[in-house]
Amino acid sequence: MLRCKYIYSGVSMNKVPVAISNRHIFLSEEDTIRLFNTLNVPRQKTLGQEKYYAYEPTVDVIGQNNYVIKNVRVIGPPRKKTQVELLFGDCVKLDIKPYIRQTEDIKGSPGCVLKSKYGQAQLNTGVIVPARHMHANYEDAEKMGLIQNEFVKIRAAGDRALIFDNVLVRIDKYASLAFHIDIEEANAANVKPGQMLQILK
Amino acid sequence: MLRCKYIYSGVSMNKVPVAISNRHIFLSEEDTIRLFNTLNVPRQKTLGQEKYYAYEPTVDVIGQNNYVIKNVRVIGPPRKKTQVELLFGDCVKLDIKPYIRQTEDIKGSPGCVLKSKYGQAQLNTGVIVPARHMHANYEDAEKMGLIQNEFVKIRAAGDRALIFDNVLVRIDKYASLAFHIDIEEANAANVKPGQMLQILK
Repeated sequence: MLRCKYIYSGVSMNKVPVAISNRHIFLSEEDTIRLFNTLNVPRQKTLGQEKYYAYEPTVDVIGQNNYVIKNVRVIGPPRKKTQVELLFGDCVKLDIKPYIRQTEDIKGSPGCVLKSKYGQAQLNTGVIVPARHMHANYEDAEKMGLIQNEFVKIRAAGDRALIFDNVLVRIDKYASLAFHIDIEEANAANVKPGQMLQILK
Repeated sequence: MLRCKYIYSGVSMNKVPVAISNRHIFLSEEDTIRLFNTLNVPRQKTLGQEKYYAYEPTVDVIGQNNYVIKNVRVIGPPRKKTQVELLFGDCVKLDIKPYIRQTEDIKGSPGCVLKSKYGQAQLNTGVIVPARHMHANYEDAEKMGLIQNEFVKIRAAGDRALIFDNVLVRIDKYASLAFHIDIEEANAANVKPGQMLQILK
């Protein structure tokens, strides 16, 4: 690390495992019923953050230009508002303005159409590209000196080395320690799920 | 920039415009004839680096698993060796190990099949994911204090702010000043073609 000694002063040696998300959807109860005819949608598997689960059936996302991204994963349980988290590249294909926001911050975001074999939902808003963030529980946060809603930098080493800036810290009692990025961010850095990356404070 | 004052000491204020590449192919003369039946392939347009041009016809890339990426752009003039530059995500789809290398550094890289309406080429090697780099001519390089083959860092600001590390500097008499990244890297940083990014030395 000699070449870095003037660049990264005050480096923390705390590390966080990477979790990589693909495009996915959270549905409101109303849209769950519109698209699946029931609130008891069959579940697929448990995700890393244990309070969430994936539904078996998927939905198609249709853009302003009628381009279709098929078989997009839906995550339960239902939320107050439907939220479609896409990759930046998906938005380009669908002709939807990429709106980079933290989860649930959908105010002013564009819409799209969701379609399943049971029905469809016309969204006026709710499409975002997820902003990078990390999860920690209270114990991890205290150990690492992380503060709720602060921004940290996270460094990936290797052939596509880079430093992710603007990483929001989200502390929650039930959180598994994880740095959440999407597939494009992971590919840009050549990092794999579970790989330990260094938090720079 | 107050929050950065202990992090980036010795910052250079030199800036470089972004050039974003999609997947593309350079063909050897032999493979050009195999795929297009001629060396006089119709040309499409002039690219940023003026000694290169795009051919009108495209080819399909076929992976180990028979997955096909259709209509991939081919860049002329022919090179000594055929080289297929893919996105990291393409390699995952094609079941080809992503091999991140600078252009022409194809030793040990995996192969694939290229197919056109005229014929096909079976490559044993030549598939890489391009390693990020920047181009400068001698005048730019002198002005900015850039040295041939050194590595610099380049910072993108904004909602997906990050610092690209390991950016190889390639100085050439005919080069247009440009920081070359691929679509996934550009999307990860939310940067657009031509956007000026800061070089950190």
